Amino acid sequence: MDTVQLSRRYRSVRDRSVSLTRSLTVEDMAVQPMPDASPTKWHLAHTSWFFETVVLEDVDPTFNFLFNSYYEALGPRVERARRGLSTRPSFDDVMAYRASVDRKIAKALAESSLTADQLAKLELGLHHEQQHQELILTDLKYALGTQPLRPAYRSDLRLASGPLAQPAWREFAGGTVEIGAPTDGFAFDNERPRHAELVAPFALATRPLANAEVLEFIAAGGYRDATWWLSDGWHVVQTEGWRAPLYWDVDATGLVATTHYTLAGVVPIEPAQTACHLSYYEADAIARWRGARLPTEAEWEIAAAVLDPDDGNYADDDRLHPGIAIPGLGQMFGDVWEWTCSAYTAYRGFRPLPGALAEYNGKFMSGQHVLRGGSCFSPRGHVRASYRNFFPPGARWQMSGARLAMDR
Amino acid sequence: MDTVQLSRRYRSVRDRSVSLTRSLTVEDMAVQPMPDASPTKWHLAHTSWFFETVVLEDVDPTFNFLFNSYYEALGPRVERARRGLSTRPSFDDVMAYRASVDRKIAKALAESSLTADQLAKLELGLHHEQQHQELILTDLKYALGTQPLRPAYRSDLRLASGPLAQPAWREFAGGTVEIGAPTDGFAFDNERPRHAELVAPFALATRPLANAEVLEFIAAGGYRDATWWLSDGWHVVQTEGWRAPLYWDVDATGLVATTHYTLAGVVPIEPAQTACHLSYYEADAIARWRGARLPTEAEWEIAAAVLDPDDGNYADDDRLHPGIAIPGLGQMFGDVWEWTCSAYTAYRGFRPLPGALAEYNGKFMSGQHVLRGGSCFSPRGHVRASYRNFFPPGARWQMSGARLAMDR
Amino acid sequence: MDTVQLSRRYRSVRDRSVSLTRSLTVEDMAVQPMPDASPTKWHLAHTSWFFETVVLEDVDPTFNFLFNSYYEALGPRVERARRGLSTRPSFDDVMAYRASVDRKIAKALAESSLTADQLAKLELGLHHEQQHQELILTDLKYALGTQPLRPAYRSDLRLASGPLAQPAWREFAGGTVEIGAPTDGFAFDNERPRHAELVAPFALATRPLANAEVLEFIAAGGYRDATWWLSDGWHVVQTEGWRAPLYWDVDATGLVATTHYTLAGVVPIEPAQTACHLSYYEADAIARWRGARLPTEAEWEIAAAVLDPDDGNYADDDRLHPGIAIPGLGQMFGDVWEWTCSAYTAYRGFRPLPGALAEYNGKFMSGQHVLRGGSCFSPRGHVRASYRNFFPPGARWQMSGARLAMDR
Amino acid sequence: MDTVQLSRRYRSVRDRSVSLTRSLTVEDMAVQPMPDASPTKWHLAHTSWFFETVVLEDVDPTFNFLFNSYYEALGPRVERARRGLSTRPSFDDVMAYRASVDRKIAKALAESSLTADQLAKLELGLHHEQQHQELILTDLKYALGTQPLRPAYRSDLRLASGPLAQPAWREFAGGTVEIGAPTDGFAFDNERPRHAELVAPFALATRPLANAEVLEFIAAGGYRDATWWLSDGWHVVQTEGWRAPLYWDVDATGLVATTHYTLAGVVPIEPAQTACHLSYYEADAIARWRGARLPTEAEWEIAAAVLDPDDGNYADDDRLHPGIAIPGLGQMFGDVWEWTCSAYTAYRGFRPLPGALAEYNGKFMSGQHVLRGGSCFSPRGHVRASYRNFFPPGARWQMSGARLAMDR
Repeated sequence: MDTVQLSRRYRSVRDRSVSLTRSLTVEDMAVQPMPDASPTKWHLAHTSWFFETVVLEDVDPTFNFLFNSYYEALGPRVERARRGLSTRPSFDDVMAYRASVDRKIAKALAESSLTADQLAKLELGLHHEQQHQELILTDLKYALGTQPLRPAYRSDLRLASGPLAQPAWREFAGGTVEIGAPTDGFAFDNERPRHAELVAPFALATRPLANAEVLEFIAAGGYRDATWWLSDGWHVVQTEGWRAPLYWDVDATGLVATTHYTLAGVVPIEPAQTACHLSYYEADAIARWRGARLPTEAEWEIAAAVLDPDDGNYADDDRLHPGIAIPGLGQMFGDVWEWTCSAYTAYRGFRPLPGALAEYNGKFMSGQHVLRGGSCFSPRGHVRASYRNFFPPGARWQMSGARLAMDR
Repeated sequence: MDTVQLSRRYRSVRDRSVSLTRSLTVEDMAVQPMPDASPTKWHLAHTSWFFETVVLEDVDPTFNFLFNSYYEALGPRVERARRGLSTRPSFDDVMAYRASVDRKIAKALAESSLTADQLAKLELGLHHEQQHQELILTDLKYALGTQPLRPAYRSDLRLASGPLAQPAWREFAGGTVEIGAPTDGFAFDNERPRHAELVAPFALATRPLANAEVLEFIAAGGYRDATWWLSDGWHVVQTEGWRAPLYWDVDATGLVATTHYTLAGVVPIEPAQTACHLSYYEADAIARWRGARLPTEAEWEIAAAVLDPDDGNYADDDRLHPGIAIPGLGQMFGDVWEWTCSAYTAYRGFRPLPGALAEYNGKFMSGQHVLRGGSCFSPRGHVRASYRNFFPPGARWQMSGARLAMDR
Repeated sequence: MDTVQLSRRYRSVRDRSVSLTRSLTVEDMAVQPMPDASPTKWHLAHTSWFFETVVLEDVDPTFNFLFNSYYEALGPRVERARRGLSTRPSFDDVMAYRASVDRKIAKALAESSLTADQLAKLELGLHHEQQHQELILTDLKYALGTQPLRPAYRSDLRLASGPLAQPAWREFAGGTVEIGAPTDGFAFDNERPRHAELVAPFALATRPLANAEVLEFIAAGGYRDATWWLSDGWHVVQTEGWRAPLYWDVDATGLVATTHYTLAGVVPIEPAQTACHLSYYEADAIARWRGARLPTEAEWEIAAAVLDPDDGNYADDDRLHPGIAIPGLGQMFGDVWEWTCSAYTAYRGFRPLPGALAEYNGKFMSGQHVLRGGSCFSPRGHVRASYRNFFPPGARWQMSGARLAMDR
Repeated sequence: MDTVQLSRRYRSVRDRSVSLTRSLTVEDMAVQPMPDASPTKWHLAHTSWFFETVVLEDVDPTFNFLFNSYYEALGPRVERARRGLSTRPSFDDVMAYRASVDRKIAKALAESSLTADQLAKLELGLHHEQQHQELILTDLKYALGTQPLRPAYRSDLRLASGPLAQPAWREFAGGTVEIGAPTDGFAFDNERPRHAELVAPFALATRPLANAEVLEFIAAGGYRDATWWLSDGWHVVQTEGWRAPLYWDVDATGLVATTHYTLAGVVPIEPAQTACHLSYYEADAIARWRGARLPTEAEWEIAAAVLDPDDGNYADDDRLHPGIAIPGLGQMFGDVWEWTCSAYTAYRGFRPLPGALAEYNGKFMSGQHVLRGGSCFSPRGHVRASYRNFFPPGARWQMSGARLAMDR
């Protein structure tokens, strides 16, 4: 990518982050409703900090303390759970900070003063900002959807409706296959090296789990029956009182859910829509209850490798909610991140990025599961077949769902 | 008070609350840094809710849920610790709510449609709002003073400095005395009935504890020596890592403190200033270390009864920090709330207000201590000799200090 | 008391502690079911440690670490909540330790080698051991009564039954009265100095609260109605799920209780028996619901001063459960410790014992309430009219009940 | 196995459990020092319950409640963390329960009244009891080693000493290999089905990590440097204050450890001994610090497949501590369970046992890592090359260590 293209891409990505805030109040952007859900303001500042500190190596001690996320090598930082308590810098100050970083980057690009290493980090910074664009929506949904008034994020969103297709299975022969990102082109370190895996014959559901199936699971008492749950999951169900996916409203019987919170506000649950906000525990329990399982990440990747990753329901499509679950594997990209049964660990031969960026992905390789395919909160162009997202099995504030698999 | 006077007083009190917010950002007013420190925005709304719900008996279910503080009899409410998570209504919406309540009250006063009971509740509502004016400053100090940048609340505040007077003792003969509020005039229910108590001869320090004495206690290792502490206090010292009063910066030795956060920002500790942000545990420990004790509330009240309660350093004086500790009992009112050794319990014959207002003071009569005299955060005109403030012994985010006493 | 008498008294008190263990297994004596309920074995060792360390000043570092309860001045000690985790020394080793201490004390008494100060501490040690005799029963009841099989402590205990007398009021004129222990005779430091208090006219219920009244409170929905409760108490009711006094079994409606655990095992609730295992919160709520209040400790003491403190249902009577509530004030001593509305604070002029024993009572003077009169778990001869027991308002594993009072 | 052999084997296994208790006091066997470390008495009862309830299907409701471990399908049970609080049944009662179950099993075997399914469950019950024999030692070590006196379990144990061999690497070519248990012979459900995996060339350390290497890691500041740690591991290091493996005593510098607790008591750390009580986090951090990694379970299994699993330092050898780390792969069995980098998940085609036994292994397949090879606490004859043990990454009270691997 030449400098002009890179400058244009930089501005485009940076502008998109800000555009996500248009419908919000300053308070909406300041709040941290739980430790995992950072304030919008923090996301806007942290992504700028990344360019300033990591790319330009221009360290402002105050901003470094305030906006370093988790890089131990880059020094102490605000405790994660307290990000929402810094009322200063104000939103306006954060926007001024963004502008100052943008000017520095623009100048460096115009003067071609960045080294190859810095340019590579700049590209990483853009992918990093796209990740935070998804998190802005994810965290905002939590902030808005768990407060008493449950306000809509935007009043102009249009959710999908329609009939639900019967699920079907697509057969795959397996064999010795290759997965992971090739050497060229951008990819995160955890997608590499591309390597061989042995995959036995399997079948993949042609569409993701829909709300209809979750409603059935609830009606069948699935949230009350330990039979279907992993031990850790059952513990969470009981201690947290789970009775349905996050944001769903369940009636007094506990067996019927009718409405849920979406970024368009509280609306009736549409059975045909792709189910979202499932934890791994729920996805796994529903799979078991249906006599199926979740796919491995290798199975998922070889099935998705032939698809166009940009062809899906992404945040750019301005629906900001999954669409109708439709057969044909067409939704492997977009709509919902699909939980795999693969624990998030290093590919054999994994080499983390050098320096502080070694902490980007590698240090999280315990206790999490891989999710694949991007979601309706991801920006188009961000996701690849080899892309590995990861979250702990109890996480359900992410735009996460599931697609079933079977041995063959 | 006639209706015109009452209208004027209403407007004056209500305006003052808003005037406290002039130097703040919207984020500053939205944050809840700990469960006890509510957002400014919430205080502004809650005081309006009080007039609407309690005085006008005009219940809006949504606002009742959002802005009821602790009245079980008035229905369910937002969990106390989550007040800062409601980004809506926005600050502008809260100000519109205030205006709508003010219009309704103004109309009712103009039309003389309020009953005597409602007028009494209106007067209570004004004292209630004054209490929250103090809390706005108290809670803001915590919000601003515990975040990384520790911004000043206002840049134009002028703190006091000067030489420290030697402490001296004023002798009191005691005897059978009367304390508590008389039947006429405004007082909270917990100040009544006025009743006799037997007080033995005692002496009261002519000035409150100053920073100099706290610095001595720190330098003497007082925060490391269980000898001086109540058992519960020593537990808190150890589990919370207390090494000095709240907002004080202690060096690595733990024996020297040089700066502290004030609403004017971080400034050097002035030895002659009246010490503030002491918990009961600290006040009691320092008293014991000095061979003295804290006064009972009866001792405090009979000493203060002859003073003019409006003569003191109050929030109206725009210092927003205690002044120099000066002999002469002149600071019994204003500057700092003075901890007494009296547990907060009912006076014999105590009758709580009828209805939901019974919860105003009575249900907190366990586990707390009485403080007396108002502070530099209180509005002038709010405090009386019989006024009983109360907080748990570990609380120290309040503008609280101490005055020593001795048996005679 | 001469040496022969003292030796006899020492042996008698020491033997009684051991006699309490006759019906127990080694496991019963080793367990700590919650931080507040120490193992029998620990009580047996700690009381011996007191004689060895405090009286004889003969410090064994290991035993000092293991069996010091809370004396900061006497050095570090096993964390309170972990007393049950020391399987060594074994029960047999603890008994050997007791024997060795007893030999040392016997020798010192025989040789008259103890100073007057040591003799005074020896007497304190005997009262101290009596306190732990009560705690052995109290803590054992918790250990046995909260495990699945709920075994009886002894199979030969006979609980009382009979008709319930109507409650009545005894009138007291009040006035300037004296309470507290006189200078001579044994008393704990917190009972002194004897001093004057002003007491207004009041009435005292002639019998303590009986189970019948608690059953009425439950049936009236008292445990579901915030109206009756202190704010802190209501919080505990909700977070701990209280629906009845400790050890009571409530049916699914939550309004009916039929059985409870006693040291005789699980038995039907006898309405006429004096109610026990009430927290202060419950005693206060039931009092308020009945239009009464709890007495102050001065009121209690002047009413009890004319009674014989040894005339009551004590542990020596081998019932180990309160008897039938009978009018006449006869039960002010024994049966149950009666909660007073007085916070546990220092009497004016209070002087703690010198040295480490200063920690015996004084450092607990915050956050607790005074209880008076001893219980069916106390040994006869231990309690006085001026005796001040104290516990936090949420404690209910003690043999605690209530007697109502009224203003007059 | 014919009935006579099975009877003999049953008696042998059952007797061995009891033989582990010979040096213990009743208190030692009753205590539960943390939720994960159950009392010896409970282990002795639970294994009996397994035979009675699962094999004989003879359900005693009381014992089922008391001694069911985690089988949701078999009904409610004592909360795991409260197993140590049931002082009844006493140790003697538990031994009587064991005897009664043994009689019932002996009778059923003698009468050949057990079905094939019951005989299979009986065999499972014996392997189950062997697992609990290891847990008895593991949990006892924790109970004894974390109490103040740190008593030895036995005074006659002899720990190994000697020179430490240099580490070396054994090369493996990898390829498409088969792992997992074959269809015939006993194996747990989670070891099946035997299946193909693709393994790239790798090298395995010829001996496990020794104390010498852990001492080096400590001396190099490894416990203070986030560089080496997984993010979750670093969090535990900081919140739990880890400075060395469990049971190690570290001096004030934090860089030197000299003694540790073993079942023989507190002894000097012998550098040449195989390191034990490492969590996954520590094993992984030390591997990374040494430029290596932990093996996958497939790598481990193909290397171990050619060895005799009974050839190792097992509990039967009565050392009860790992021996000297010696090159040659000879210690892959016995000494310490070796952490693998493989998350504990289902083998493709995994079928849990039918009925309640489905919960035996399958429901724990999240958040844990696989360990292989048995330990000096395991009974000889219990472990196979395909045997999959599993624990959460923070667990370190198990007899767990590590063997390094490298890509080739």
